[in-house]
Amino acid sequence: MKKISRRKFNESFLKGVGVASVAATIPTACAAGNGLPVGEKLGVALVGLGSYSTYQLGPALLETKHCYLAGIVTGTLEKEKIWSEKYNLPKESIYNYENFDEIIKNDTIDIVYVVLPNSMHADFCIRAARAGKHVICEKPMAMNVEECDVIIAACKKAKVKLSVGYRLHSEPYTQEVQRMVREKTFGAIRFVNAEAGYYSGSHPNQWRLDKTLSGGGALVNMGVYSIQSAIYGTGTNPISVSAQEFSTRPEYFKGTDETISAQFEFPNGVVGNIFTSHNVNTNRLYVSAEKGWFELHPANSYGPLSGRRSDGAEIKFPHESQQKLQMDDFALHILKGTINRVPGEMGKRDMIIVEAIYRSIREGGKKIPLDLGRMGIV
Amino acid sequence: MKKISRRKFNESFLKGVGVASVAATIPTACAAGNGLPVGEKLGVALVGLGSYSTYQLGPALLETKHCYLAGIVTGTLEKEKIWSEKYNLPKESIYNYENFDEIIKNDTIDIVYVVLPNSMHADFCIRAARAGKHVICEKPMAMNVEECDVIIAACKKAKVKLSVGYRLHSEPYTQEVQRMVREKTFGAIRFVNAEAGYYSGSHPNQWRLDKTLSGGGALVNMGVYSIQSAIYGTGTNPISVSAQEFSTRPEYFKGTDETISAQFEFPNGVVGNIFTSHNVNTNRLYVSAEKGWFELHPANSYGPLSGRRSDGAEIKFPHESQQKLQMDDFALHILKGTINRVPGEMGKRDMIIVEAIYRSIREGGKKIPLDLGRMGIV
Repeated sequence: MKKISRRKFNESFLKGVGVASVAATIPTACAAGNGLPVGEKLGVALVGLGSYSTYQLGPALLETKHCYLAGIVTGTLEKEKIWSEKYNLPKESIYNYENFDEIIKNDTIDIVYVVLPNSMHADFCIRAARAGKHVICEKPMAMNVEECDVIIAACKKAKVKLSVGYRLHSEPYTQEVQRMVREKTFGAIRFVNAEAGYYSGSHPNQWRLDKTLSGGGALVNMGVYSIQSAIYGTGTNPISVSAQEFSTRPEYFKGTDETISAQFEFPNGVVGNIFTSHNVNTNRLYVSAEKGWFELHPANSYGPLSGRRSDGAEIKFPHESQQKLQMDDFALHILKGTINRVPGEMGKRDMIIVEAIYRSIREGGKKIPLDLGRMGIV
Repeated sequence: MKKISRRKFNESFLKGVGVASVAATIPTACAAGNGLPVGEKLGVALVGLGSYSTYQLGPALLETKHCYLAGIVTGTLEKEKIWSEKYNLPKESIYNYENFDEIIKNDTIDIVYVVLPNSMHADFCIRAARAGKHVICEKPMAMNVEECDVIIAACKKAKVKLSVGYRLHSEPYTQEVQRMVREKTFGAIRFVNAEAGYYSGSHPNQWRLDKTLSGGGALVNMGVYSIQSAIYGTGTNPISVSAQEFSTRPEYFKGTDETISAQFEFPNGVVGNIFTSHNVNTNRLYVSAEKGWFELHPANSYGPLSGRRSDGAEIKFPHESQQKLQMDDFALHILKGTINRVPGEMGKRDMIIVEAIYRSIREGGKKIPLDLGRMGIV
């Protein structure tokens, strides 16, 4: 934390850190206090400097009010130089995957944002928690529900805050949808349709197509957006799901799902369709209610988004970096105790739904009951 | 046909007309010739004077250029008076369901438009054909595929033209979608989403909720629109379908399906989702292609419709009565040999899909193969 003297960890704790394990203990909580001087910022370290960090998170951290880029973790020497120059990073705040755990000693870093391939989320989130750092885990949260549980437990044990990289919860179009649902602007919701997909072209070597790294295809990458849309578009968690898988280019999508449709039942007879694909460009959220409808289209790109309502009103807000808003929201949650818009339980909930969708597909489209209660709904 | 001397049927033929049977023969073809004087109009008789005839078809026939309201068939004496006054109908062109077959003797009536509950479509279409009249059968074409076959055979045997009441094929928004699909304005189609439903309120005594009269619920009433949309939105017939049924108000929708989602596979890996409901207001068509998207919203109401494209262009046409355009198109088909935009085979094709959807639901969402070829695609 810039300009703030920070809790010191017992450095001997580091010696106990080996492979990821939630059994490790954190000797002291690292939640920052209230009453900070105005203008104080939390330090963020980005773990993984792929295109999302390079083109979205890094630039966003130049605009954030409550946090800033304080460190990086990368396996590529060349990136160390480029990033340290661009973001004026001190040498001691640049880590690689081998010496990552030494981050525990770095008081300028308060938040670790894990932006690695999905298979590495759990390991680095747990290690970040054990280093006493608050954690943002990029979506999808992990490879499976079990890993989500382990991440949540690790953060709880370490008394650090945990969030998942669902940036849309911090941006105004999505918040306007949430408001209209909550306030029943058009009466009770009856139906939601949410689509999230893109044509992935022909890049067979990308990690997203390698199931050992991604855990799944379109569903875990883009489908989580349509799951999210369907849930904040209705304000409730689904109580059942059925799903179907389609394959257009099996020679390209060898190991991961290409295209999936799924159907949700929500409480009170509300129904929802979602669609996701690595072969189709689509990016929409539509909500039909008693007295009208509203939609976002695009609904989950980096913006600017666009929205309409059945009464002719346009849904329109000034464009700001969604990632800036997201990271500032999380920083304020840590600094001021404001709401955590995307707690780990939300990422876990979505992974439960993802697993149910895959199960329905394996079982020929069978309806799978879901017992989520209000889990993950903030 | 107004002012045109018309072929005379052997009146003794009438004596052979009893219950509907395709075995009956028509002694002579009744296709009207070419070379008509400009301004000549075909006479249309509406069979069934419910709200669709009252508020749509009747008024449209005051605007049509190539046909006009020449007769009515109704079981309600009160309606006889109202309609004959409003539309200046001669007494001899007013029929009831008992004396309907005498329409064979009425040379002013060229086209019979059957607007009755679905269970009566086949009977009256067949009787109209046997009376030598061209036939428009309101959608859905019939209670099942078998009835569609019988209607088609009856019209073929009688050498009369047959169309189904899919008015959208004659209106410009739908034709623009068909054009963009055909001309690949945004490249090859990859995905279509089509929704058609309305909240049917609380009118438990309506015939649409009585399966013996309707043959089905939302799917046969509104679902056929989304089936149609999905097909002209891709330009191809589906090769498989899976489907799920949802029930929100089972106490109200006792005998007919309330809400259905279905998933189509089309040739070349194109996929489609459709949704229909008697409990949800929705009315949309969205097509995602290689280089962009286009949508109609609303897509299948009586108009004005509205459409957008990914390049920012609005899809916009002057509003005209869709029913006017539809009936004029059919009259021109008869008069001038122009294309029959909605042949009976299209209604039959949709009923094959409807039956496959119901079968998939019965079989727990199983994927049902469809072998339609180009059936019904004009």
